[in-house]
Amino acid sequence: MIDAVDIVGYGRLGQALHRLFESKGVNVRCIYSLSKTGERFASRDQWLSDETMAPLVFLAIPDDQIGLQLEQRSPSTSLFIQCSGNCERFASNRFSTAVWYPLQSFSLGRNPDWNSIPVLIESESAELLAWSQSLGLNIQSIDSQQRRALHLAAVWANNFGQTVMGMAAEICRNHELDPKLLKPLLDETLSKALALPGQQAQTGPARRGDEQTLHDHLELMQGDAAVQELYRQLSQFIRQRYGKV
Amino acid sequence: MIDAVDIVGYGRLGQALHRLFESKGVNVRCIYSLSKTGERFASRDQWLSDETMAPLVFLAIPDDQIGLQLEQRSPSTSLFIQCSGNCERFASNRFSTAVWYPLQSFSLGRNPDWNSIPVLIESESAELLAWSQSLGLNIQSIDSQQRRALHLAAVWANNFGQTVMGMAAEICRNHELDPKLLKPLLDETLSKALALPGQQAQTGPARRGDEQTLHDHLELMQGDAAVQELYRQLSQFIRQRYGKV
Repeated sequence: MIDAVDIVGYGRLGQALHRLFESKGVNVRCIYSLSKTGERFASRDQWLSDETMAPLVFLAIPDDQIGLQLEQRSPSTSLFIQCSGNCERFASNRFSTAVWYPLQSFSLGRNPDWNSIPVLIESESAELLAWSQSLGLNIQSIDSQQRRALHLAAVWANNFGQTVMGMAAEICRNHELDPKLLKPLLDETLSKALALPGQQAQTGPARRGDEQTLHDHLELMQGDAAVQELYRQLSQFIRQRYGKV
Repeated sequence: MIDAVDIVGYGRLGQALHRLFESKGVNVRCIYSLSKTGERFASRDQWLSDETMAPLVFLAIPDDQIGLQLEQRSPSTSLFIQCSGNCERFASNRFSTAVWYPLQSFSLGRNPDWNSIPVLIESESAELLAWSQSLGLNIQSIDSQQRRALHLAAVWANNFGQTVMGMAAEICRNHELDPKLLKPLLDETLSKALALPGQQAQTGPARRGDEQTLHDHLELMQGDAAVQELYRQLSQFIRQRYGKV
């Protein structure tokens, strides 16, 4: 029976999990921190030596720490849960592991809506699935291959999305315009990008081969060669992939 | 007194304007089409020769047509309204012109929410401003310089946003995953991109110099050299601009 959880690591993800569990009335038995100290946290030494852990132990630590930490630990009957999109699932006969990947980017001081975040689960434990569902989360079972693909998709969407939308916001700020002016346009972009194939959804000067606009835009960005270069690279990609032959 | 409008051109923008005006009870006196024929439309010849036009004439035609069309027309006391972000404002002593730029991407078959779309206006006509406001539109006065900057920002946001978010959606589809799984992540990306400077908002493997993930991702995309190349270019840009030195 899953009557409590432990959290290992208290960075952005660890804190987000903590808030989630508190809001759902889940008993958080112990929070281990590998670096922070304080009354609130059990130490790294305790994490490595504690024999009794909660039935679920959420590992909210960097990917490259997961194997290192588990290898040092004494065996346990708890289910150790990796929360990341790209890491190998740790295989060992000393522990059971599962992957429980919330498809969201967590920032300190922001409160995401957990009821809408997809939680992608890779596990043989029907109990983990049932428990996650009982919290009202939007869960889905996937395999390793899909999880890796989803992590790559998340980089295109979130990291590269930030880069190009952030550039748009920066141009606004540089011209005393509120970046929020772009919100309705971006909502529409987002909803089209998810609904239609690129061949249908892609528009703009690069696709239609509008040299005059490309020229005007490059001129507007003069003084920032790196930004001009990225504009050219993106335009080139669009032209080759979606442009008229 | 503005008691009617004309629309010239009936592509995506012309149709969106038509629906807007109908929904607001504005009298659309005449729709001229430069290419379409039918009962509904007045012809190109009529557009060039009509002496009496509505007080406002919305030019929903391509940028490079605006000057060409106005030069061929007989003079008029109407206010000729350009609706585009990047075009020169047509200057002539035979016509009054204004720019009325709705910051949205219009697609056939989609109904944008006009009450939220910012309409950026460049005009000396207080009457045009008051009339636009009376329709309940979200209007704002800007100058030419700001309008050009906003058009560039819109390309980064909408066109390049489509490219990277569309790529994310494509990866999902290729792995039998619903692209809509990305929606909560993208909503968060969008809201952070507009609220925070890139230096604060940018995250991901490229920024933190996570070579293992970059390597894994490039491997996942093998077979599509152009996509790999764009991934490398975006990662390189992020690293140079936001990465650790």
